[in-house]
Amino acid sequence: MSSIFEGFLSTPEAMDAFGARSFVDAMLRFEAALARAQAASGLIPEAEAQSIIGTCKVELFDVDRIVRDSAHSGSLAIPLVSMLKETVGLFNPAAVAHVHRGCTSQDTIDSAMAMVSQGALALIEADVRTSVDALVQLALDHADTPMLARTLTQPASVTSFGLKCVGWAAPLVRSLRRLRVAGQRALKLQLGGAVGTLAGMNGKADAIITIMARDLGLTRPMACWHTQRDEWVGLGCELGLLAGSLGKIARDVVLMSQFEVAELAEPVEQGRGGPTNMPHKHNPVASMVALAAAQRAPQRVAALLAAMPQEHERALGAWQAELAEWPLLLMAVHGSARAMAGALPRLRLDPARMLANLDAMRVSAGRETADTWFDPALATQAGVLARAQLAQLRAMAR
Amino acid sequence: MSSIFEGFLSTPEAMDAFGARSFVDAMLRFEAALARAQAASGLIPEAEAQSIIGTCKVELFDVDRIVRDSAHSGSLAIPLVSMLKETVGLFNPAAVAHVHRGCTSQDTIDSAMAMVSQGALALIEADVRTSVDALVQLALDHADTPMLARTLTQPASVTSFGLKCVGWAAPLVRSLRRLRVAGQRALKLQLGGAVGTLAGMNGKADAIITIMARDLGLTRPMACWHTQRDEWVGLGCELGLLAGSLGKIARDVVLMSQFEVAELAEPVEQGRGGPTNMPHKHNPVASMVALAAAQRAPQRVAALLAAMPQEHERALGAWQAELAEWPLLLMAVHGSARAMAGALPRLRLDPARMLANLDAMRVSAGRETADTWFDPALATQAGVLARAQLAQLRAMAR
Amino acid sequence: MSSIFEGFLSTPEAMDAFGARSFVDAMLRFEAALARAQAASGLIPEAEAQSIIGTCKVELFDVDRIVRDSAHSGSLAIPLVSMLKETVGLFNPAAVAHVHRGCTSQDTIDSAMAMVSQGALALIEADVRTSVDALVQLALDHADTPMLARTLTQPASVTSFGLKCVGWAAPLVRSLRRLRVAGQRALKLQLGGAVGTLAGMNGKADAIITIMARDLGLTRPMACWHTQRDEWVGLGCELGLLAGSLGKIARDVVLMSQFEVAELAEPVEQGRGGPTNMPHKHNPVASMVALAAAQRAPQRVAALLAAMPQEHERALGAWQAELAEWPLLLMAVHGSARAMAGALPRLRLDPARMLANLDAMRVSAGRETADTWFDPALATQAGVLARAQLAQLRAMAR
Amino acid sequence: MSSIFEGFLSTPEAMDAFGARSFVDAMLRFEAALARAQAASGLIPEAEAQSIIGTCKVELFDVDRIVRDSAHSGSLAIPLVSMLKETVGLFNPAAVAHVHRGCTSQDTIDSAMAMVSQGALALIEADVRTSVDALVQLALDHADTPMLARTLTQPASVTSFGLKCVGWAAPLVRSLRRLRVAGQRALKLQLGGAVGTLAGMNGKADAIITIMARDLGLTRPMACWHTQRDEWVGLGCELGLLAGSLGKIARDVVLMSQFEVAELAEPVEQGRGGPTNMPHKHNPVASMVALAAAQRAPQRVAALLAAMPQEHERALGAWQAELAEWPLLLMAVHGSARAMAGALPRLRLDPARMLANLDAMRVSAGRETADTWFDPALATQAGVLARAQLAQLRAMAR
Repeated sequence: MSSIFEGFLSTPEAMDAFGARSFVDAMLRFEAALARAQAASGLIPEAEAQSIIGTCKVELFDVDRIVRDSAHSGSLAIPLVSMLKETVGLFNPAAVAHVHRGCTSQDTIDSAMAMVSQGALALIEADVRTSVDALVQLALDHADTPMLARTLTQPASVTSFGLKCVGWAAPLVRSLRRLRVAGQRALKLQLGGAVGTLAGMNGKADAIITIMARDLGLTRPMACWHTQRDEWVGLGCELGLLAGSLGKIARDVVLMSQFEVAELAEPVEQGRGGPTNMPHKHNPVASMVALAAAQRAPQRVAALLAAMPQEHERALGAWQAELAEWPLLLMAVHGSARAMAGALPRLRLDPARMLANLDAMRVSAGRETADTWFDPALATQAGVLARAQLAQLRAMAR
Repeated sequence: MSSIFEGFLSTPEAMDAFGARSFVDAMLRFEAALARAQAASGLIPEAEAQSIIGTCKVELFDVDRIVRDSAHSGSLAIPLVSMLKETVGLFNPAAVAHVHRGCTSQDTIDSAMAMVSQGALALIEADVRTSVDALVQLALDHADTPMLARTLTQPASVTSFGLKCVGWAAPLVRSLRRLRVAGQRALKLQLGGAVGTLAGMNGKADAIITIMARDLGLTRPMACWHTQRDEWVGLGCELGLLAGSLGKIARDVVLMSQFEVAELAEPVEQGRGGPTNMPHKHNPVASMVALAAAQRAPQRVAALLAAMPQEHERALGAWQAELAEWPLLLMAVHGSARAMAGALPRLRLDPARMLANLDAMRVSAGRETADTWFDPALATQAGVLARAQLAQLRAMAR
Repeated sequence: MSSIFEGFLSTPEAMDAFGARSFVDAMLRFEAALARAQAASGLIPEAEAQSIIGTCKVELFDVDRIVRDSAHSGSLAIPLVSMLKETVGLFNPAAVAHVHRGCTSQDTIDSAMAMVSQGALALIEADVRTSVDALVQLALDHADTPMLARTLTQPASVTSFGLKCVGWAAPLVRSLRRLRVAGQRALKLQLGGAVGTLAGMNGKADAIITIMARDLGLTRPMACWHTQRDEWVGLGCELGLLAGSLGKIARDVVLMSQFEVAELAEPVEQGRGGPTNMPHKHNPVASMVALAAAQRAPQRVAALLAAMPQEHERALGAWQAELAEWPLLLMAVHGSARAMAGALPRLRLDPARMLANLDAMRVSAGRETADTWFDPALATQAGVLARAQLAQLRAMAR
Repeated sequence: MSSIFEGFLSTPEAMDAFGARSFVDAMLRFEAALARAQAASGLIPEAEAQSIIGTCKVELFDVDRIVRDSAHSGSLAIPLVSMLKETVGLFNPAAVAHVHRGCTSQDTIDSAMAMVSQGALALIEADVRTSVDALVQLALDHADTPMLARTLTQPASVTSFGLKCVGWAAPLVRSLRRLRVAGQRALKLQLGGAVGTLAGMNGKADAIITIMARDLGLTRPMACWHTQRDEWVGLGCELGLLAGSLGKIARDVVLMSQFEVAELAEPVEQGRGGPTNMPHKHNPVASMVALAAAQRAPQRVAALLAAMPQEHERALGAWQAELAEWPLLLMAVHGSARAMAGALPRLRLDPARMLANLDAMRVSAGRETADTWFDPALATQAGVLARAQLAQLRAMAR
């Protein structure tokens, strides 16, 4: 999935997770797990299952051809299953009839998408955790550091940089918590057969589902979810919220990084953040990535939500649109999470400048207003709040 | 909030909940609760608090003027607080200084929005419960009723109408469950003062918040959420998911109601669903409302998500955009929930036609295909699934 | 259409244009024009037409009841036509059968929407013209005024404030030009009859359409556009582009208005832009309105585009969703246009501060970089461009 | 740009147009044209220009490395220009200083994007023209073929299949017309230098722009458009409208293709539209692609519009988000255009079934209603309209 225009807005890991090889591998793992579970429950003979399982190795398949053929057939699973049958047939003709038994393309594709999304979600969570740790440390170190509080972009009074950091961290901690629940709900096995009735499973569907879910590390579904996408799209919503919360941090970082404000700056990194011929330029590239994600993710979530009214037992157009939007959402969110995880632990702070800006405002505001609204001592009250909230955050994060 | 173009897509109750009178009333209840809590915690004198509380009656205020003046001041709370001070001053000049003490416009507005949203959410939940009950009954009654299962809009095999109904019900049951959690998180008191430090509360903020939250029936917030909107927008996402799940039901109802399919129809209601000069027209008006909501809600959720990167201690533009989008989302979702709650309990079913369509497909498909894929007996397997899933749904709904 | 949350983001004029009275009036003007044209072309008797025309007065109708009843019937035109028939019947029973003859609800509603939109569009254009004039003047006055040019929010080199103003003005001039074309295309008569065949017009449809379009000041359509919405939504897209271009100006104004940058400020207006207890606050309220519109308009355009695949001869859900989204788009865009038209002619500039910020950057950048990239003389080159582009803009605006 | 999830929703040609090799090639053509124009206008020596031009060959560059490095530098042009300088230096060290002279990354990237978009747009237009031709022929052949007209998805009266086809064709003809204008406006050279002042061009910018625009086949811009995106996004809007109009056709095709309606079907194609084990399945795959595009394009357009308020002289986040969204829009729209161009010329019609459905409705409606609303002779009136509108369409298309 190496789009040249996504590259710098996502990460190699996230792009690999949704790459052709990774996805074909996941589909094959699904087919192998299906055969294994169907053999274990007595639906298909053990020997034929072994032939299928042994063939479900991504290195045996022409991944590019599967992708190419999917364009014509309108589905990735159709060429995959057909090649799998062909290859199985070379070794064990009797096993061919048991390949993908009682299953439908959407079972394979949705389950594979859940598998690769699990990996992408873990990447995202790890990077968010790094940001949380960095912000908690900053909040502790600067609980009482006075700075201008700004409302509607204008100086309003005094806060502390530590309280600001707690305000940045709290939504991330909540996101991690909610993502755990939403991920658990969404990343579930898909198995419904042709029309959701599991008709081809000879009444053994229940056992097969239990075995497969455990085998693949996916949640056991209450029912097949071919056209019931609420929990799946629910995870998408959570990712949209995370992109928004990361974007809020980025927005503030950018505003504070302006030359005239100069209260903080993103870390300097060789070859990043400026054209070579402009030594004075130091662009906040990490925040750029997070802001781009915060602009794109809402539209992606909207596309997922808009695709929910899916027709009957399998949708025409809406499911396919959802498939294409989904990886883009996770790729963008990981881009954002990674960028902020790179920048926040090494933010370059200038508390003296924070104070200087506050002093300048005192001068500009006049004595009385300065004493009422811009007394640096007001940061103490912010510090008390910051510490109290930090304690709660840590309790939550545990 | 009687927009002439929203009227038939929403409900009078939801429009009232976000109407000017209701919102001004909620803002006044907030101001009264603030005075009460500040008196209880010793921040302001009891007598002055009583003067304020006694004045916080919506019937004492010129609601239209508040709305009108808000256009100039750029905020609903500014004219409200100013009129409140004026009125309080008529009775007790000493109390004026204690009105809205240590508070900011956003505290009043966000809290009021949470209050009125609580009412709207209760309306939505009640109607969704009606739909769930209706679908559960239909699922029981028709667990084994055979009908065509359709994938990509074409007949694929056989399912039962009961299994279809469980598939419609399950996302609604899950929505109710998730809405409870999301509502609890989102519908919280807002109290941060000018810049989120609660600086004007003389260290009594903690007690004040506890008292006010209990008084107003709102959740006690961990921190002020002036620019941390994740839990608020999270509730918006849940409403978007609900609109999608209701839209899926509506989509299927519409497809099954087509003249040529005729497997079911929305209830007949005098003066609804058809022009008077066309006796043959019976439009599925409830599904129309639900589909319109399913098309509008995603864009509204996108707007909320896009507004999340809010600047510093109060946003410029993003918060205001969010305020305007929010009621529209709840109004549309209640329109949808109400419409389906009206239609689903009285759906007119035609199981004979379901069977006839299946038979027609048998004829068209040819003997072998008919026996493999279109045997009405396949509905039995669907019935088993339907009953098992129903049992789980009921356990969940408890 | 007095939504309390739209009030300060729109204008009274735009809200009135889409208000119940205005819309019912437009529907009545349509019905009168229909009767007039049908009489002129000999389809209905002149006397009966006169009875209908004479009754089509908004003051004769209970506007609130029409709105209320529309919720049940699912259409604004159904109660209107039924009341119109009733009232016509009181004076001339023979005329009743000629009311709304050969017409359908969508004909009335779409045409009325085109009529009221015409008014709203004119409001928008007038305000944009004011902004253009102000920007052209600023560009002339400050063609050579040096200021920091900023890329990715960091100082990059030098530009002139005049060139910035031309950059703000040019998209507005282009919008005015494109709006003229798009408005002409979109604001057309709707007349198709029940299913778009104009079957009830006895072959006189052509003449009737010509007369009605002229009478109502609408474009004569090539065909009815019940489910062909491209030109209509095309106008919506243009309004979305305008909201974006106004938002770009607002974004820059806000950045330049920050206390630490202070290169310009929105005009001071009594009771606007700050809470009464904070004399130091001067919020850029006009830019706030424009930024809120720039965040909401894209979602509205998306809703219009998403509603385009409308079923058969009249859509179920999509058309109704479009009807509800449309006024919100125009209201938001007029809010933005009006806000900027209020602020731009009276922007408070500080060219000395522009120079001071540039000087500060010179100091910070070091001699060599300062001479290469931050020489105030670089503004001269910007001035040359500004004047050349201004000349072209003026030619375009003619 | 071979995303495995876009493959079957786009086309190989469109994916190639935005592929890494094609884009790097376009960037190199831009750099060559720059050198050529700068030499022609006397800004750089002819010999050095020749060295640069001779090196601007895509086969000399490691495309993958450019893509990889762009992730770190945050821009595709930075590694390209750096490699170009390196390679030029091997042959002619004196030319290195003249590479990318007075230019900025955004100049190269936006211009390259315009170049590759030109190709993609031509692909789209060609396919739309095929659809128009097919629909015009169908409209002629079936101007009087009676069929049910359906409003709100229910039979309302009679129309002709020919009139339906004209209704499908007209928006496409209008799109072609508008795309020509919008493409001309949007596909323009980008050249502004570091901050839009063209400061490094020694006053020769005018001549250079003229030469380059002609050389690259791009429109000569009135001014650089680094943060003035209205004409660019305007083209995006047009593509969104086209996706909607194609989606409307697809929606109707799908509804008419249902087994129970069976008035038409997409062409049968080996290996497309059904799983191998379900001989009875014939999925409308072309319409699926068009519907998926119609669901995704609106969100993409929203993302482009939302990205318009770009800061100062170059945006942080918004421009980068736009770059990533843009190719996805064109790829989806070409997928849709190609799918419909494949299906419409070979639609399988069943006029007998159209009549049979109409007859069934006559029976169901009862004598009086049948005679008033469902007389097949009503198709004659539709036929008259169809022919008249066809004549106008052909005049327009000329």
